Amino acid sequence: MNPVVEKYTAGSTAIFDMEVMPFDIEASRAHAKGLAKIEILTADELRQIQNSLDSLEKDLKAGKIKITPEDEDCHTVIENYLVEKAGEVGKKIHTGRSRNDQIAVAMRLYMKHHLRAIETSARALASDFVDAAEKQKDVPMSGYSHLQQAMLSTVGHYFAAYAESLLDDADLLAAVRKYIDKNPLGTAAGFGTSIPIDREFTTKELGFAAPQLNSLYVQNSRGKYESAYLEAMAQVMLSLGRFANDIVLFVSQEFDYFSVDESLTQTSSIMPHKKNLDVCEIMRGNVSVVMGNQFIVKDVMRNLVSGYNREGQLTKKPLMESTHIVEDSIEVAAIVLGGLTPKPESIRAKLNKGIFTADIANELVQKEGMAFRDAYKKAAEMDAGDVDLAKNIASKKSLGAPGNLGLDTLRARLKNKS
Amino acid sequence: MNPVVEKYTAGSTAIFDMEVMPFDIEASRAHAKGLAKIEILTADELRQIQNSLDSLEKDLKAGKIKITPEDEDCHTVIENYLVEKAGEVGKKIHTGRSRNDQIAVAMRLYMKHHLRAIETSARALASDFVDAAEKQKDVPMSGYSHLQQAMLSTVGHYFAAYAESLLDDADLLAAVRKYIDKNPLGTAAGFGTSIPIDREFTTKELGFAAPQLNSLYVQNSRGKYESAYLEAMAQVMLSLGRFANDIVLFVSQEFDYFSVDESLTQTSSIMPHKKNLDVCEIMRGNVSVVMGNQFIVKDVMRNLVSGYNREGQLTKKPLMESTHIVEDSIEVAAIVLGGLTPKPESIRAKLNKGIFTADIANELVQKEGMAFRDAYKKAAEMDAGDVDLAKNIASKKSLGAPGNLGLDTLRARLKNKS
Amino acid sequence: MNPVVEKYTAGSTAIFDMEVMPFDIEASRAHAKGLAKIEILTADELRQIQNSLDSLEKDLKAGKIKITPEDEDCHTVIENYLVEKAGEVGKKIHTGRSRNDQIAVAMRLYMKHHLRAIETSARALASDFVDAAEKQKDVPMSGYSHLQQAMLSTVGHYFAAYAESLLDDADLLAAVRKYIDKNPLGTAAGFGTSIPIDREFTTKELGFAAPQLNSLYVQNSRGKYESAYLEAMAQVMLSLGRFANDIVLFVSQEFDYFSVDESLTQTSSIMPHKKNLDVCEIMRGNVSVVMGNQFIVKDVMRNLVSGYNREGQLTKKPLMESTHIVEDSIEVAAIVLGGLTPKPESIRAKLNKGIFTADIANELVQKEGMAFRDAYKKAAEMDAGDVDLAKNIASKKSLGAPGNLGLDTLRARLKNKS
Amino acid sequence: MNPVVEKYTAGSTAIFDMEVMPFDIEASRAHAKGLAKIEILTADELRQIQNSLDSLEKDLKAGKIKITPEDEDCHTVIENYLVEKAGEVGKKIHTGRSRNDQIAVAMRLYMKHHLRAIETSARALASDFVDAAEKQKDVPMSGYSHLQQAMLSTVGHYFAAYAESLLDDADLLAAVRKYIDKNPLGTAAGFGTSIPIDREFTTKELGFAAPQLNSLYVQNSRGKYESAYLEAMAQVMLSLGRFANDIVLFVSQEFDYFSVDESLTQTSSIMPHKKNLDVCEIMRGNVSVVMGNQFIVKDVMRNLVSGYNREGQLTKKPLMESTHIVEDSIEVAAIVLGGLTPKPESIRAKLNKGIFTADIANELVQKEGMAFRDAYKKAAEMDAGDVDLAKNIASKKSLGAPGNLGLDTLRARLKNKS
Repeated sequence: MNPVVEKYTAGSTAIFDMEVMPFDIEASRAHAKGLAKIEILTADELRQIQNSLDSLEKDLKAGKIKITPEDEDCHTVIENYLVEKAGEVGKKIHTGRSRNDQIAVAMRLYMKHHLRAIETSARALASDFVDAAEKQKDVPMSGYSHLQQAMLSTVGHYFAAYAESLLDDADLLAAVRKYIDKNPLGTAAGFGTSIPIDREFTTKELGFAAPQLNSLYVQNSRGKYESAYLEAMAQVMLSLGRFANDIVLFVSQEFDYFSVDESLTQTSSIMPHKKNLDVCEIMRGNVSVVMGNQFIVKDVMRNLVSGYNREGQLTKKPLMESTHIVEDSIEVAAIVLGGLTPKPESIRAKLNKGIFTADIANELVQKEGMAFRDAYKKAAEMDAGDVDLAKNIASKKSLGAPGNLGLDTLRARLKNKS
Repeated sequence: MNPVVEKYTAGSTAIFDMEVMPFDIEASRAHAKGLAKIEILTADELRQIQNSLDSLEKDLKAGKIKITPEDEDCHTVIENYLVEKAGEVGKKIHTGRSRNDQIAVAMRLYMKHHLRAIETSARALASDFVDAAEKQKDVPMSGYSHLQQAMLSTVGHYFAAYAESLLDDADLLAAVRKYIDKNPLGTAAGFGTSIPIDREFTTKELGFAAPQLNSLYVQNSRGKYESAYLEAMAQVMLSLGRFANDIVLFVSQEFDYFSVDESLTQTSSIMPHKKNLDVCEIMRGNVSVVMGNQFIVKDVMRNLVSGYNREGQLTKKPLMESTHIVEDSIEVAAIVLGGLTPKPESIRAKLNKGIFTADIANELVQKEGMAFRDAYKKAAEMDAGDVDLAKNIASKKSLGAPGNLGLDTLRARLKNKS
Repeated sequence: MNPVVEKYTAGSTAIFDMEVMPFDIEASRAHAKGLAKIEILTADELRQIQNSLDSLEKDLKAGKIKITPEDEDCHTVIENYLVEKAGEVGKKIHTGRSRNDQIAVAMRLYMKHHLRAIETSARALASDFVDAAEKQKDVPMSGYSHLQQAMLSTVGHYFAAYAESLLDDADLLAAVRKYIDKNPLGTAAGFGTSIPIDREFTTKELGFAAPQLNSLYVQNSRGKYESAYLEAMAQVMLSLGRFANDIVLFVSQEFDYFSVDESLTQTSSIMPHKKNLDVCEIMRGNVSVVMGNQFIVKDVMRNLVSGYNREGQLTKKPLMESTHIVEDSIEVAAIVLGGLTPKPESIRAKLNKGIFTADIANELVQKEGMAFRDAYKKAAEMDAGDVDLAKNIASKKSLGAPGNLGLDTLRARLKNKS
Repeated sequence: MNPVVEKYTAGSTAIFDMEVMPFDIEASRAHAKGLAKIEILTADELRQIQNSLDSLEKDLKAGKIKITPEDEDCHTVIENYLVEKAGEVGKKIHTGRSRNDQIAVAMRLYMKHHLRAIETSARALASDFVDAAEKQKDVPMSGYSHLQQAMLSTVGHYFAAYAESLLDDADLLAAVRKYIDKNPLGTAAGFGTSIPIDREFTTKELGFAAPQLNSLYVQNSRGKYESAYLEAMAQVMLSLGRFANDIVLFVSQEFDYFSVDESLTQTSSIMPHKKNLDVCEIMRGNVSVVMGNQFIVKDVMRNLVSGYNREGQLTKKPLMESTHIVEDSIEVAAIVLGGLTPKPESIRAKLNKGIFTADIANELVQKEGMAFRDAYKKAAEMDAGDVDLAKNIASKKSLGAPGNLGLDTLRARLKNKS
């Protein structure tokens, strides 16, 4: 093959296949057991293959395995390794399967693994936000609409918003995991096989909820499942990007709502007043990266003719890059949250009296029985006078308001493992 | 206000608010009941408001309601209508709510409604594909990979792939519905209210699974929920766009796999041989439109400072346009499917012998106990001879293969209403 | 044809074809002249057609022309109108052309027209920014990096940045106009014609720089040219969106850098302190809308088989919607700029001393000959003392710095019409 | 600094900075000369710095330079290297500049370099297509619309379409190069400097057309220029992706229009009939990758507050990745084109008589003076009979039609170097 063509076609896939390989090994184990079940492999042959896969896994962890250009992909590496280690029996591993269902099942396991891991870390971060909300629930802070001071709120109320956002994200991660929890192994190149493989067996073996049925649909679903996966990733980033952007704003000299731990800011030895939160800027920018990646995954595969098409390979990079971004972003967000300390006086000094007008209107409704629209007009002409901030906050008792955060409900959701 | 600025800010929102209004009325009913429950409204006042809302709904259906530039949005239209019809009591409807939670709850109801409706129609279309698969399960057709003939398959196997794809889509539509099934009503402008409204009551009244708790999060989730909604829409389009593209290819003169009902093709009186399937081309193109719309919804809101921001308004158009595209596309896809008749001879005439080589290899494995990799090499040098197509198909017995479509499993899923 | 299929295929194209029609008429005039030149039309027949086209144009302006579902598109409307008005000769207008090159040439004229118009208005807005920069060139304001106060700058310097941004945008608009300035008329359905039409003639007649040569490429360039067009549109929006976002921030209570004319803000009668700049939020959001539209235009057409494909129709809506957004946004941005008045005291009160440290370092370099890196370290420990703001600004004399805005260079560019 | 935060913030930027470094060195040379001109550096000091930069360049080429985490970026590496090699004078290099204008100028040089290189290779590929068009200009092939056979064309006409497409792409690459040909060096952190640097001098030194004037605009244009750059890249990919998709179709068994050199296809030893053109599938998919990257570059920076923001760093990866994709894709497309041999008999065997009907209509117009619309109706009922393909092709004489390719015009454009 023309080496330029070969290199172009392979692209950077080897890098990403290294990350897929543990899942490919896992699926190969199940496939081998399945072959033994239908007596394509003897018990002894199975043992040889399993031992070789164990050895491969060890070598992989030890950094001894490389994917060379001749290998092309991790699937070939595995088969070649088996042939080398186990001899003739290695040539049997590819019975009744194809690289097409092999990559499908490995990616499915990869996605399931990371969806669960990220769900767990998203819940842990939500828990941190609940704790922060509890701690700061009495610290007054203006609430905003249109970036204009709107009504009195609290730092705790602000943090609780992100706890709930992340809990929702965790739910979607779980929902997508359920959506893609179907085993493609055994669908071969897209048209099944005459080898009497037992797909229900490998489905159980690998812990899938069910087989993905139609062998052609396995190929056609590529890009679809990946897009749903990245939608869940993107939702996490939408939560974190907004938080990051808020914090960049809140630590500006003009707002000055939080002091930030020095370990979080880029040092500018010449401008000691600066608290550059580069980390939050990068987090904010990473929302776009994940969005772009979701677009690529969807777009590369959309409207392709039914069946396997090679560009499926191009979905690996954006998927894995986004996975790392999300995992790292959650870790970093927890560190950022831990490094923020509200500055109550500074926050209070910025409060504008106008934010109490709506409260006056509500008081006129409740105490004087005025129709809201009339109260609203009257309140606009009144002065809030000296407002007791704590009392004002306490008065906002509607569920989920600053005076009634409902943290117990969030804590209950934290306990509901999916 | 400067009229140019006003017009620019309003944009085309009035058109889309007309579509939101029925859901806004529904939420207003629940809100009024809630106000009666906490005695802001007397039983008599509640009755007046309910009567007026009934009347508004009737007028709306009769095309008598318009949103004028002065109204700005459907929320004002409703309040003004109530004041006009019910008098003073109309001024009370806005107690304890804001246009911010009002649009949130109306859009939530809109999304829930369409998610359920589209789930139902996606299932109906999946059912059509199951029927078509049953009918054509014995018609041989080449299966493709890389758009090259790969292995023998059937028209039925091909159709069954889309049945399963749409069943998956229906599952995701249901999952997203569950994800967003939270009531934002009662969170006011984003910071709750001192009016002692009962959010659990309106939650039940409107049939939500739970309140969306944190009032700030209600604002922050705008764009997020919409993006998840559009991901589900996009998944349907990914199924349909691929189908549409296949069919454009399969009805070309070179493939000639299907005859198409004349009612589906643009007539080209001068080129009678042409079977232009414009409808499928548009369907294929609409995948990009929905993808673009999902991007807009996500992007408009991403990284905005916490709280209400006006550009939320811009999410309505892409969301509703996509909803219509998906609803129409499903309807049209059913018509297209109904208008396709396979041409067995033409399909058969295109079959290339090479597609049987993998089968030979599998036979060598099964009958001669050869290791797959060796069988594979040997098969490459053998001639398939005369192949009995029916027998070949029947031999592909692995679950989901052409000889074992598993249509009963699909039918069982059709019955599992979410 | 199945009416559901017909409706779906047509979509909302009629609305957009109404906007294309004037350009279609213009091209039809040139085409008719071309047919007369090669004697397909007699002089008299040409006159009849021209009169009918004049009459159609008048009727169109008067709102008397509609595109009915039977017409399908504006091309048919024109031909039918000619047949009706001019009789038999109307049937000759379609000689040597196809709807494929007809829509191509009409869209090309549409794009050229708007590129020029928007270039002009972008330059006018740039001119406003130059004027504002001149007026405010001595008003100190902190410059920012990472949204942290970085160095002293001026309001004039800030405005001048946008003048240059828009001048660049105007240049790109002109460059794209040049890029697409090629006449597709006469390429028929994509494969030319045996009618001996004179493409050079219509090229001159319509004011194109050259014919677009290859008839198949005319079809293949659809989506490409449109994407380049929308890139130029997007660049304008990137300028305006950033400006809009800055202003939303700068009018917040915490910054309070500008007072805003009341005609620009949404009135909040209950919170008189609020200066909601909804108009800027919408402008900011419209960046995403135009980006989404550019994506659609590119994506709908990408990787389609060579030749005309029906989904080209779907490029019209995003292209025209974006055109309007950009035209309106420029108009509105000029109004916003006109309604901003800097608040020098408020701005000055926010200045943080740290922003002068870099200046101290530079002074150590210049006055004491210290190496910059050493000066930088020393400056970090020094106090800026009382800084004369005017003098500090004047000291920033590098080209394009606050003390040397180079407005004359910008004014010279304003005069360079493309 | 927290190491997790540091790692997250740096991301993979070091990899991309390695690619920027040669341009950073080039700009550092010009900057040093500029400092000598204003006597910040003595002639001797300048010589020391130049020697050190030469040495750095050599070490870089030799693979001896690494960017460590402590270095953070290539800018620091350069300064540290200078201090190490040249001693005290190295500490002067950063006088009057900032890393903000340093990265801006390095990226500008990077983009200019690649725009020119890609323009050259795009023209070379266009030249290949012109040659192929010349060679195959008499080989009949059906032209398509809606993927239906539409009119007779030739393989040469088909290839000529891509020649023109690539010539257009080259023009846009040149136009974007001109658009961004402005020197940001000397704008420091975004607010200029009190060091009296001569920006006109470095502008000439580095070969820029003009200085980018306003120092704040330099920061604000980040993302904008990059997006314009990627639009030009995307246009090339739109040409190549369409070509790749055509070829995948044309080498399918059903079309069988071209034989393909074996060095281009993935070998499938078991299915010898298969001509899997993986390379074209990847090329087709890479269109989406570049589109996604353009989106990221635009989106990361859109609506950020004026001035430097850290996420600018995230634009490097998508920009460089796309640059490589485009460069490689052009190289590979030339190889693919070189490996295609038309199969005239196979193509001819697929021709459908209906494609001559439009010609009959045109003949009726020309020979019998019939009005086109009437001729069109009559032709639909006539039989084309035996068509002389060569004569038919020759009859399509309109400029750019199969019988009049205008290759000389394309050749003339090939000579017009930008």
